[in-house]
Amino acid sequence: MHMYGNWRSAAAFRVRIALKLKGIAYEETFIDLDAGDQHKPEFRRINPQGAVPALFDGDGPPLTQSLAILDYLEETRGGVRLLPEEPRARARARSLAQVVACDTHPLYVPRVRTFLMEHYGLPRERMLDFLRNAFTTGLATLETRLSTEAGTGRFCQGDSVSHADLCLVSLWVGTGIFGIDTAAYPTVARIAEACLDLPAVAEAHPLRQPGAPSA
Amino acid sequence: MHMYGNWRSAAAFRVRIALKLKGIAYEETFIDLDAGDQHKPEFRRINPQGAVPALFDGDGPPLTQSLAILDYLEETRGGVRLLPEEPRARARARSLAQVVACDTHPLYVPRVRTFLMEHYGLPRERMLDFLRNAFTTGLATLETRLSTEAGTGRFCQGDSVSHADLCLVSLWVGTGIFGIDTAAYPTVARIAEACLDLPAVAEAHPLRQPGAPSA
Repeated sequence: MHMYGNWRSAAAFRVRIALKLKGIAYEETFIDLDAGDQHKPEFRRINPQGAVPALFDGDGPPLTQSLAILDYLEETRGGVRLLPEEPRARARARSLAQVVACDTHPLYVPRVRTFLMEHYGLPRERMLDFLRNAFTTGLATLETRLSTEAGTGRFCQGDSVSHADLCLVSLWVGTGIFGIDTAAYPTVARIAEACLDLPAVAEAHPLRQPGAPSA
Repeated sequence: MHMYGNWRSAAAFRVRIALKLKGIAYEETFIDLDAGDQHKPEFRRINPQGAVPALFDGDGPPLTQSLAILDYLEETRGGVRLLPEEPRARARARSLAQVVACDTHPLYVPRVRTFLMEHYGLPRERMLDFLRNAFTTGLATLETRLSTEAGTGRFCQGDSVSHADLCLVSLWVGTGIFGIDTAAYPTVARIAEACLDLPAVAEAHPLRQPGAPSA
């Protein structure tokens, strides 16, 4: 497979983890989001939304949106299962994933940060309050649910890694990149560490990808 | 089933359509989002995120997040199929759904609008620029994809209604509620009208629910 991604992208990180967990060979082309390469015509032809990841499985049209890609990989490839079998457990794993992928991450992507600075004239430091609020709201929801709901185990849903964990760890790594205080989220922290202990997650880590500050 | 919803909620609208299309009997309790009832302890015990919809199927724990609920209904109930069989078509339907449910709708929910007004001191009319930008960015992505990708038919993915259409029409109805200019999105408009022609969608329409301005 061939993925267009970016070292910092939380959505690309989720897909990269799934590819590695399922043992799928892939190449990744890095799109420079800071340089605006996602808006260039040649990339807009791949994804009109101007966002990563976009994944090619053979010659077919590009697959976009990280959660849709995770479901596609689950439905078409073997290897490690990334959703439980039982419908309510699946629904809970998906719901936790969507707390991140729907209600948290889209609030702090580059185009939102740019709009806040350019349209409202907010200096970068004040703009970051919006980002911090998104992170802490999402983290607080995850912490409350994971620390009170019966389904939580070593990972978000039981003792096996699922879409929920891929999303959780993508948010967790963002707390490091953006300097978010995580002291109030011990259950999220515990599960994130369990994820980061998996070789596939460690290898897929944003800071281990080309273009990352410490790479 | 028993749903906690709100007439205006785009996410509750999606789930309401699916319940009606699948012929599932349900009752709906309206949560007054303007009065802040979603933040009261009795509702936070149902959904710690303080968001609708929350759906009870029997006595089980509440199901939350609209896309997770749509998948749960698809996996556990018969009736009209709301995702195609073929994996690439499924992935495309899900990707289009997520353009709305991940990258557009979460940007204009009440908690975001409130943060922009309270934290940055933006008057309501200026705050609404953020909402309008979210709508038009999402609509432009949908229009480009739906008017150029081979999979589009009478509905977003072929000639059968899918999760993508439930999300599209939930965004479309929002353009009316919030006064968004839709002239530039004829393909989105055509598909939204095809959706609104379905009795299940018409019955589930926000403005036909208790509490709505014209109800």
